[in-house]
Amino acid sequence: MTSSRSSLVISNVRLPDGQAVAVSITDGRIDALGPDVVAQPGAAIENGGGALLLPGFVEGHTHIDKSNWGRPWYRNEVGATLLDRINNERRWRKESGHDAGAQSLALARAFVQAGTTRLRTHVDVDTDAGLRYIEGVLETRQTMRDVLDLQIVAFPQSGLLGRPGTDELLGRALAEGADVLGALDPALIDGDPVASLNTTFALAERHRKPIDIHLHEPGEVGAFTFRLLLDRVEALGMQGQVVVSHAFCLGALPERERDALLERIARLNVALLTTAPPSRPVPPLKICREKGITIFGGNDGIRDTWSPYGSPDMLERAMLIGMRYDMRRDDELAIAFDCVSAAAARGCGFADYGLQVGARADLVLVDAETVAHAVVARPKRKLVLANGRIVARNGELVAAALEGA
Amino acid sequence: MTSSRSSLVISNVRLPDGQAVAVSITDGRIDALGPDVVAQPGAAIENGGGALLLPGFVEGHTHIDKSNWGRPWYRNEVGATLLDRINNERRWRKESGHDAGAQSLALARAFVQAGTTRLRTHVDVDTDAGLRYIEGVLETRQTMRDVLDLQIVAFPQSGLLGRPGTDELLGRALAEGADVLGALDPALIDGDPVASLNTTFALAERHRKPIDIHLHEPGEVGAFTFRLLLDRVEALGMQGQVVVSHAFCLGALPERERDALLERIARLNVALLTTAPPSRPVPPLKICREKGITIFGGNDGIRDTWSPYGSPDMLERAMLIGMRYDMRRDDELAIAFDCVSAAAARGCGFADYGLQVGARADLVLVDAETVAHAVVARPKRKLVLANGRIVARNGELVAAALEGA
Repeated sequence: MTSSRSSLVISNVRLPDGQAVAVSITDGRIDALGPDVVAQPGAAIENGGGALLLPGFVEGHTHIDKSNWGRPWYRNEVGATLLDRINNERRWRKESGHDAGAQSLALARAFVQAGTTRLRTHVDVDTDAGLRYIEGVLETRQTMRDVLDLQIVAFPQSGLLGRPGTDELLGRALAEGADVLGALDPALIDGDPVASLNTTFALAERHRKPIDIHLHEPGEVGAFTFRLLLDRVEALGMQGQVVVSHAFCLGALPERERDALLERIARLNVALLTTAPPSRPVPPLKICREKGITIFGGNDGIRDTWSPYGSPDMLERAMLIGMRYDMRRDDELAIAFDCVSAAAARGCGFADYGLQVGARADLVLVDAETVAHAVVARPKRKLVLANGRIVARNGELVAAALEGA
Repeated sequence: MTSSRSSLVISNVRLPDGQAVAVSITDGRIDALGPDVVAQPGAAIENGGGALLLPGFVEGHTHIDKSNWGRPWYRNEVGATLLDRINNERRWRKESGHDAGAQSLALARAFVQAGTTRLRTHVDVDTDAGLRYIEGVLETRQTMRDVLDLQIVAFPQSGLLGRPGTDELLGRALAEGADVLGALDPALIDGDPVASLNTTFALAERHRKPIDIHLHEPGEVGAFTFRLLLDRVEALGMQGQVVVSHAFCLGALPERERDALLERIARLNVALLTTAPPSRPVPPLKICREKGITIFGGNDGIRDTWSPYGSPDMLERAMLIGMRYDMRRDDELAIAFDCVSAAAARGCGFADYGLQVGARADLVLVDAETVAHAVVARPKRKLVLANGRIVARNGELVAAALEGA
């Protein structure tokens, strides 16, 4: 990322704890933050008008390559199984001429507009499309490089073992710029959890990349796969390098079995991602946190052939997380917000994150009294800064962000 | 309700099925609707600009007397049990000088602004406050009478049997203008389901009012109470006169027991209300509909001491219902919308509802391609008509609605 060289001071803002402060930014980083910060001569000053100051939001799990964001409405008439949805999408992508580059760019811009400055996206790799979607999202990453940190997960949406050649394509995707290796339901999609996990871990090791696996497998079969995965994390020393997304199984195990699994997850520093779906079991968020597990949030797909739901507004995702876990107190809603900010940055490995000196100046100002208020009211973003530059104002992108420069 | 006498034609709109139509309105009612409708000489014309035409939304269950809508943020530090929340609220209402009249008016206006023209609200009656909150909401009903159909449920939030004199207060509330008798957890709050239900049904019979009972009681105890309630509906001939709100128990019973209960609910024409909470079991929506049960939606409380969540935008509630029941197809999202429109009107007994000739002209225009699109995108309301008059435009109330006239 290139960054602005001159200094900028955002005055008259409030920290989540209520303290009135100003933030000074130089070379894209916070160089001072506190009640006594004043602008140096020559610095630009932006009056925050008493707004609440939040760190730039983090989307921990989405699929921007497959979105229809901003396009004509997709009439969903798809069957209810995972395979129905996978096959429908592959067919639709072929027949509709869906453009992963253009669509990912449209959605990435909507994310920035709503205050997200770091984003992990799982991008389909399969033997029909090859690396086409990866290439589209790589272009979007390049276009948006100054305003959005975009992590690309090379994701075998159609399975890994069932379509020979997929592993090689995943390897190429990692070689060409994908940051993370994805995977999908080693037992229930691939049909061979040991072979599937072995292939995934071998690829990750060869390319020295972290792993983020979709594990939708429910209850006992999910727990079985999860234990196989943990064995490999341990054997290969991949502590801190693996995210398990969804992990529905952790919401539907007998307590003793669940807790034993959670303790091992914590010990191996495996992070969990939840979209907090209201119709599925979910990992026990507070218990995970108490055990020291990093658990963070994301949308999953947004407005695609899988699902009509989702939004580039991460405050809305925080609200949905809060509702799913019946968080009503202000201190609980702060946890929901943590899932789309600091915890997500930690889980995805985004560096230099947060509201402190030295961190990258990714900031969001909203007219809200507290973090909890911001989460439930989801007010228009008053100001968004990425890498020290103003990229959105009063809910609209400014020119620099639209140009991606 | 008084209504506009002159004629108004809304041209260039689309029905949910896609058909391009115009709507002609006279004396507050739809007098023609179709592709060939043209304005009579002297009629005002409003060009809908190709918007989607929806019926005015229906809020089936909220608590506008206890909201903090538009007020400074309420910092929630309340305990997690039902009794914690009841006692906290009663204390807070006393100490904060909360004004049920002003707050219910602020929230009622926000509902109209977002397209709701019929609303059922449960209003607290207890031995501390007496009828104070009822009186406040009666004032709001009077102020808003031309733009919002407001049904008032006299609701014993602090229990019925535990505080002697509550039954008499409920009777007075019904005599003074409340439309429906409320009730609350006859076993788990009142501690005596038979005595509690007998008191409730006797009051309803005496005042010839329908009943809407909050039944949070889970699993088997909820099913037990539900059966006691159905016995009384049957014995007193109150078919079609009773709503059971929440009914979490129906989401957590063995299938055979649940289905037997659902069949009896259908036979006795008892309606169900769900807020579709993501953290609780919920009645099986599609199965209920298949059995012929009217099941509809609502927010529950909005921005109050119970919960920070909720919104006067019923499209958002439809979205949350859709998410809770994992409805992804367009035909499923139409069901979610039905829960906050026609089904809610039927469940609450709001007359003359819908998009047909003779119905009251409560209309909403939104820029959306389909109903499903409207539900997930929740676009700003382009136009809202209540009783044939334009009350909101481009997301803002017009003067007539603000004056409530």
